[in-house]
Amino acid sequence: MSTFGTFFRVTTYGESHCRSVGCIVDGCPPGMELTEDDIQPQMTRRRPGQSAITTPRNEKDRVVIQSGTEFGVTLGTPIGLIVLNEDQRPKDYGNKTIDLYPRPSHADWTYLEKYGVKASSGGGRSSARETIGRVAAGAIAEKYLKLAYGVEITAFVTSVGGVHMFPSTPDHPTPSQNPAFIQLIQTIDRETVDKFLPVRCPDEEVSEKMAKHIADFKERNDSIGGTVTCVIKNIPSGLGEPCFDKLEAKLAHAMLSIPATKGFEIGSGFGGCEVPGSIHNDPFIRTPDVPATSDKNGIPRPKLTTKTNNSGGVQGGISNGAPIYFRVAFKPPATISQAQTTATYDGEGEGVLEAKGRHDPCVVPRAVPIVEAMSSLVVMDALMQQMARHEARRQLPALKQTVPPADNGVSMEAK
Amino acid sequence: MSTFGTFFRVTTYGESHCRSVGCIVDGCPPGMELTEDDIQPQMTRRRPGQSAITTPRNEKDRVVIQSGTEFGVTLGTPIGLIVLNEDQRPKDYGNKTIDLYPRPSHADWTYLEKYGVKASSGGGRSSARETIGRVAAGAIAEKYLKLAYGVEITAFVTSVGGVHMFPSTPDHPTPSQNPAFIQLIQTIDRETVDKFLPVRCPDEEVSEKMAKHIADFKERNDSIGGTVTCVIKNIPSGLGEPCFDKLEAKLAHAMLSIPATKGFEIGSGFGGCEVPGSIHNDPFIRTPDVPATSDKNGIPRPKLTTKTNNSGGVQGGISNGAPIYFRVAFKPPATISQAQTTATYDGEGEGVLEAKGRHDPCVVPRAVPIVEAMSSLVVMDALMQQMARHEARRQLPALKQTVPPADNGVSMEAK
Amino acid sequence: MSTFGTFFRVTTYGESHCRSVGCIVDGCPPGMELTEDDIQPQMTRRRPGQSAITTPRNEKDRVVIQSGTEFGVTLGTPIGLIVLNEDQRPKDYGNKTIDLYPRPSHADWTYLEKYGVKASSGGGRSSARETIGRVAAGAIAEKYLKLAYGVEITAFVTSVGGVHMFPSTPDHPTPSQNPAFIQLIQTIDRETVDKFLPVRCPDEEVSEKMAKHIADFKERNDSIGGTVTCVIKNIPSGLGEPCFDKLEAKLAHAMLSIPATKGFEIGSGFGGCEVPGSIHNDPFIRTPDVPATSDKNGIPRPKLTTKTNNSGGVQGGISNGAPIYFRVAFKPPATISQAQTTATYDGEGEGVLEAKGRHDPCVVPRAVPIVEAMSSLVVMDALMQQMARHEARRQLPALKQTVPPADNGVSMEAK
Amino acid sequence: MSTFGTFFRVTTYGESHCRSVGCIVDGCPPGMELTEDDIQPQMTRRRPGQSAITTPRNEKDRVVIQSGTEFGVTLGTPIGLIVLNEDQRPKDYGNKTIDLYPRPSHADWTYLEKYGVKASSGGGRSSARETIGRVAAGAIAEKYLKLAYGVEITAFVTSVGGVHMFPSTPDHPTPSQNPAFIQLIQTIDRETVDKFLPVRCPDEEVSEKMAKHIADFKERNDSIGGTVTCVIKNIPSGLGEPCFDKLEAKLAHAMLSIPATKGFEIGSGFGGCEVPGSIHNDPFIRTPDVPATSDKNGIPRPKLTTKTNNSGGVQGGISNGAPIYFRVAFKPPATISQAQTTATYDGEGEGVLEAKGRHDPCVVPRAVPIVEAMSSLVVMDALMQQMARHEARRQLPALKQTVPPADNGVSMEAK
Repeated sequence: MSTFGTFFRVTTYGESHCRSVGCIVDGCPPGMELTEDDIQPQMTRRRPGQSAITTPRNEKDRVVIQSGTEFGVTLGTPIGLIVLNEDQRPKDYGNKTIDLYPRPSHADWTYLEKYGVKASSGGGRSSARETIGRVAAGAIAEKYLKLAYGVEITAFVTSVGGVHMFPSTPDHPTPSQNPAFIQLIQTIDRETVDKFLPVRCPDEEVSEKMAKHIADFKERNDSIGGTVTCVIKNIPSGLGEPCFDKLEAKLAHAMLSIPATKGFEIGSGFGGCEVPGSIHNDPFIRTPDVPATSDKNGIPRPKLTTKTNNSGGVQGGISNGAPIYFRVAFKPPATISQAQTTATYDGEGEGVLEAKGRHDPCVVPRAVPIVEAMSSLVVMDALMQQMARHEARRQLPALKQTVPPADNGVSMEAK
Repeated sequence: MSTFGTFFRVTTYGESHCRSVGCIVDGCPPGMELTEDDIQPQMTRRRPGQSAITTPRNEKDRVVIQSGTEFGVTLGTPIGLIVLNEDQRPKDYGNKTIDLYPRPSHADWTYLEKYGVKASSGGGRSSARETIGRVAAGAIAEKYLKLAYGVEITAFVTSVGGVHMFPSTPDHPTPSQNPAFIQLIQTIDRETVDKFLPVRCPDEEVSEKMAKHIADFKERNDSIGGTVTCVIKNIPSGLGEPCFDKLEAKLAHAMLSIPATKGFEIGSGFGGCEVPGSIHNDPFIRTPDVPATSDKNGIPRPKLTTKTNNSGGVQGGISNGAPIYFRVAFKPPATISQAQTTATYDGEGEGVLEAKGRHDPCVVPRAVPIVEAMSSLVVMDALMQQMARHEARRQLPALKQTVPPADNGVSMEAK
Repeated sequence: MSTFGTFFRVTTYGESHCRSVGCIVDGCPPGMELTEDDIQPQMTRRRPGQSAITTPRNEKDRVVIQSGTEFGVTLGTPIGLIVLNEDQRPKDYGNKTIDLYPRPSHADWTYLEKYGVKASSGGGRSSARETIGRVAAGAIAEKYLKLAYGVEITAFVTSVGGVHMFPSTPDHPTPSQNPAFIQLIQTIDRETVDKFLPVRCPDEEVSEKMAKHIADFKERNDSIGGTVTCVIKNIPSGLGEPCFDKLEAKLAHAMLSIPATKGFEIGSGFGGCEVPGSIHNDPFIRTPDVPATSDKNGIPRPKLTTKTNNSGGVQGGISNGAPIYFRVAFKPPATISQAQTTATYDGEGEGVLEAKGRHDPCVVPRAVPIVEAMSSLVVMDALMQQMARHEARRQLPALKQTVPPADNGVSMEAK
Repeated sequence: MSTFGTFFRVTTYGESHCRSVGCIVDGCPPGMELTEDDIQPQMTRRRPGQSAITTPRNEKDRVVIQSGTEFGVTLGTPIGLIVLNEDQRPKDYGNKTIDLYPRPSHADWTYLEKYGVKASSGGGRSSARETIGRVAAGAIAEKYLKLAYGVEITAFVTSVGGVHMFPSTPDHPTPSQNPAFIQLIQTIDRETVDKFLPVRCPDEEVSEKMAKHIADFKERNDSIGGTVTCVIKNIPSGLGEPCFDKLEAKLAHAMLSIPATKGFEIGSGFGGCEVPGSIHNDPFIRTPDVPATSDKNGIPRPKLTTKTNNSGGVQGGISNGAPIYFRVAFKPPATISQAQTTATYDGEGEGVLEAKGRHDPCVVPRAVPIVEAMSSLVVMDALMQQMARHEARRQLPALKQTVPPADNGVSMEAK
């Protein structure tokens, strides 16, 4: 269904040619300042052609809050968010190539198999336009996370085609073993990333190579994929549910729900399979500078952290407080201006399809805010679930004694 | 929470040292023959040390059905499944190394951060023993899928450390471009996979290399990771929900919920990011031999399939009827018999931990049935959701005319 | 949360003074004709002052479909529905009585306790305006149910204050024992009910008494409650889940979620507690005229029905195919133009509140379409859940023999 | 499905003749002392024939904790609970009256319609035995609620057939207007209720009348219904979600999910429909003795309460801190030792059914702990949901100013 999350829950609607796209955000904490200005920047970052944006006034995809706030403050009730579609007319049918053939590697065919009804746009909800609601909802979650815990979520492009920012080497089969990578994720922020528009790869040399690589594919009327890496800093420890709803499982779910994604890896990832356990294990060390516990008695900052971070900030499905980082694979866009031979819907014929116009040869730069949005939805939901547990536990009377009595000062209850 | 699925829903319980582990399977279709004999084989396949199994009578982890069947037939009511724990005593605390130090890259620390209570086993539910309930439930889903649709789910080991069955090459940056791989997934089955015990990699030469690789790590008291590839054949088209619950998103969720996993990729995966769109796109062709539509009027077999399968059987989040295949990364086991320096729980001290006994240096062979089980849970849930939709649509009156009228015979309604 | 249903799922948003109210309907079967004209009539029926409506053009609360349909046909994707608010300005605060005192028996106080933020309208989402989204969504479910199964859902007023259509008597402690009631629910329809506007009690004499009763309360600046009875005809058998999600449990949930409701009873209800079991039990009889099984192989019509219907069409939480009927209690509206002494928000003071203007002295006539809408949402969700099960079972091979063998022709499998 | 609750979630399994019945409780706060001794008393109270219990050692329905606790303390992980069935043999079929005829007003027929498979016990999960899991889970929720907030939940019998503890009178059309009732619910507790065994109506005279009434029906081989009233004291304010998941909606859902229930009313209920708004409205007053706010910064006790309590402690779907009370209707048991004429399963014949043995002529005394259990599950789930919201809000920075500025000291933010 079109719902994501349990405590902080987003429900989206809308396809390419209907009146509007939007979402309902349910469960947003009350008492938070919130206006469209908090949401619009991410909306704008996900628009096509950001590199060319010169006047911020010329904004498209303007989000309008319908409900859930008053005088710029959240009420705690559902927040309705709407963005009008510019082209609201469903396309006519008949005598057009696109009505005869399902486009290769698009969702035209599977939507028809699923619903038995063909939307004028082919795979109605598979359009990138569907991600507008996600980005809007994510911006709200993100604002809360930053205000309440200082959580920072930053995504950036780490590869385009064969051009990698942190290529696998015998020494560093995975970026988690690469000091340059570990260094980068400590400091990277969105402002820095956006300095590297249009590619959003925060390394001048690699970024230029990527831009050139993309331009090559564009020229050839072809397309190419790439990867986006995302880091979540200052995340509280204890988030994620053991067993089925591990934090990495929810993140993987969220990422693979983004159109055009083909893979997800957290921490050492696929490369980590080739690192011996003796090196891969992350020893614990004392947290260098634990922030003073807030007088609000919330989830405390952890006393320990890990010396290395092959785990990617998650152990046993639960955040340990170290930065969480993961990488998402995006396939080459299916729409290309090359002739492709394919079968008709009814399987009786075969013909040639050729897209017209200019198409985006690589989606990863635009995917950056979508990856950030989905990350923030996952973290926000997990945080509220842990808050319920933590708060419920806090109201219990202290156990009469540590169980069982421990002479060495290590109790069953560490806090 | 410890629940997976909506229509076919599994809820599990149990940790290492409690009385039993088990699950409740809710939503199983009524009228299916089911006894413990349908479940036990997969339970046995996930046991440690399968290679040494000689007498099937000497089975451990015996599952017992508590409810939901009568005379060997499912009633449609919840199926309770229980497996007794052999070592039911929680371990005593005090004066032991394990009480002082959280084990590196284990869940001891994060469980304590999450719950504020330390289980005697460290990270209680993070134990591999928790997967018993999943495998039991998966065996039920699997039986249904096979009986009703002939679905076949087979997992196998494709890499151990740096030893790969289908290594990335310039010609084949992804297995989806490798004819040998595409060939293999058409024919592979469990019987074949189990001929390659103890590694479960269905290639004699590679399998031997892997076994040797594992032996090397064992000798060095070290551990190593690997990958498991899984293929789902004969899956009906139309499964998976657009937007958040795409089929690959649910599969990624399911896989990353398995202990020790670090990555997931479907179809062309990460390697596919380096393949041009013109090659990556999967043209449609007529399905060579569509099975006659069953007279039961169920979800029909698709008229089209794809010539290549870089999509991995899923487009726009929805199955297209072609084989679904994906790969899962497992990190090196955290338990090694080497000395590791790490901090105490309270962060005040530092010391050396060293696991005793012999430990499994590589988990991928045992992970095979767990990957299969989680796959079958995802497919079963998606199938029942699509059945509800398909059946609901089937009861509607036919639309008076195709909308809008189409002269070329291509209607809005293709079926 | 603001979500109802699992397979057919409605999520609503909006309060009194925001831009719009609306909902997202997810899971609607594809291929159904649907335009605003299918939804608007119920929207209009729930408007205040229906009795005075003369020109249908003068419609307020105009619903606009945002997504999920094309060319008047449902796509299967989420349907966004929006109704603009006329008064979109949140009210200013300060120096007003309503800012000082929580209104008695309103939600002002509890909303503040829950959210810690005071909406300008007091209890933001507790406004009757919130029901707009429910009625819109219900109209869609209703259309499907009628098209696919001929289900008819009709609600009507059965009491206002002490004026009852079917008063409890020694002979008929419950309407379920009253032949006049049983007769009525076989034939009643909406057209008939609306002939008895403004009260919607389908009995001329009683209706007049009720209208007079309401007028009396209006004159005294007071208010009065009443009950609405609802009947669901032609409902398929087998709907409702045993245990927690019995059909009557979901109906009770749905009804008690309507603002101002205080009670729910199904079938014989509270009066049935006083009927001996020997009379209360409903003997089975052959269904007089089973409709021929559709060639669409859907859920079949039941061969049996009950001679009496104290059960109210539900046994063991599952529909038996007989008419389902239930009654809902609505309290007197809290807003009255009488002076009421009450405490200030901070508990420090006490004062007198007096509502201005004219207020609706009795809500039951307007509640009729809301009760119908919530009923249709419950039935639709239960139907799709049962469709998934029924369809899943239908794809299984027939059991080899009835289990256990029965000589007398009564098999374990009745169909 | 067989799951109840979102944050504190119970999943049950089991029918009459399977190996065991039980449940999994997920989401229980960690760090709470819990053993079987906390659960068994309510299990025993729901057993048939409590009045005759003399030796506590002779306990049946012994619950055994399978997981989720260690050394008598909850770990926060799922708690598995099992009770063995004594009669584990499914009954044979063939040549028996019960195989030919669905029993009137039992679930035999609807289960067959739903599942297409006939369980040996008729309506498998509709057996009262299914409630064991609910009572066990409820006892855990109840312990938490008492420990953390002093919540007290007490149910008692208020009518058997026509014998009422608080009959409707012109002066008191509803108990909420009856001072004796309002007085009783302030003080009643379980110990008092159990002094009135076997009927559990806490009024000596009425209780004796009820006992005699039941005995009369027993003698006539007939059965009779009755009502159970339940009161929840010391419940925190702010529980319950606006719109669909109002606290009373969840309570109604919970109650109507108990076998044999036909109605639910909260606060003034059906009788309240006949009380003018001017009397029915509950004015606010300062809470006489607000308990000092705990230094744990949890959900605070409300400063206001209501002078009268026709609302039943809930306004706008949210608890206001006053006692919540409601009443549940139970029909006469369907199993009676009288001959009943009814149709065969196949609708071809008609015959006479007559139950053998002695049957419980009235279920309300045994229903008392079940009503309490379901109440505690509802409150616990709502509490944890509110804890997440309250805690999330608490971590936000204070708003810079009250919005909008208010000269009269009443701010938008009351706390």
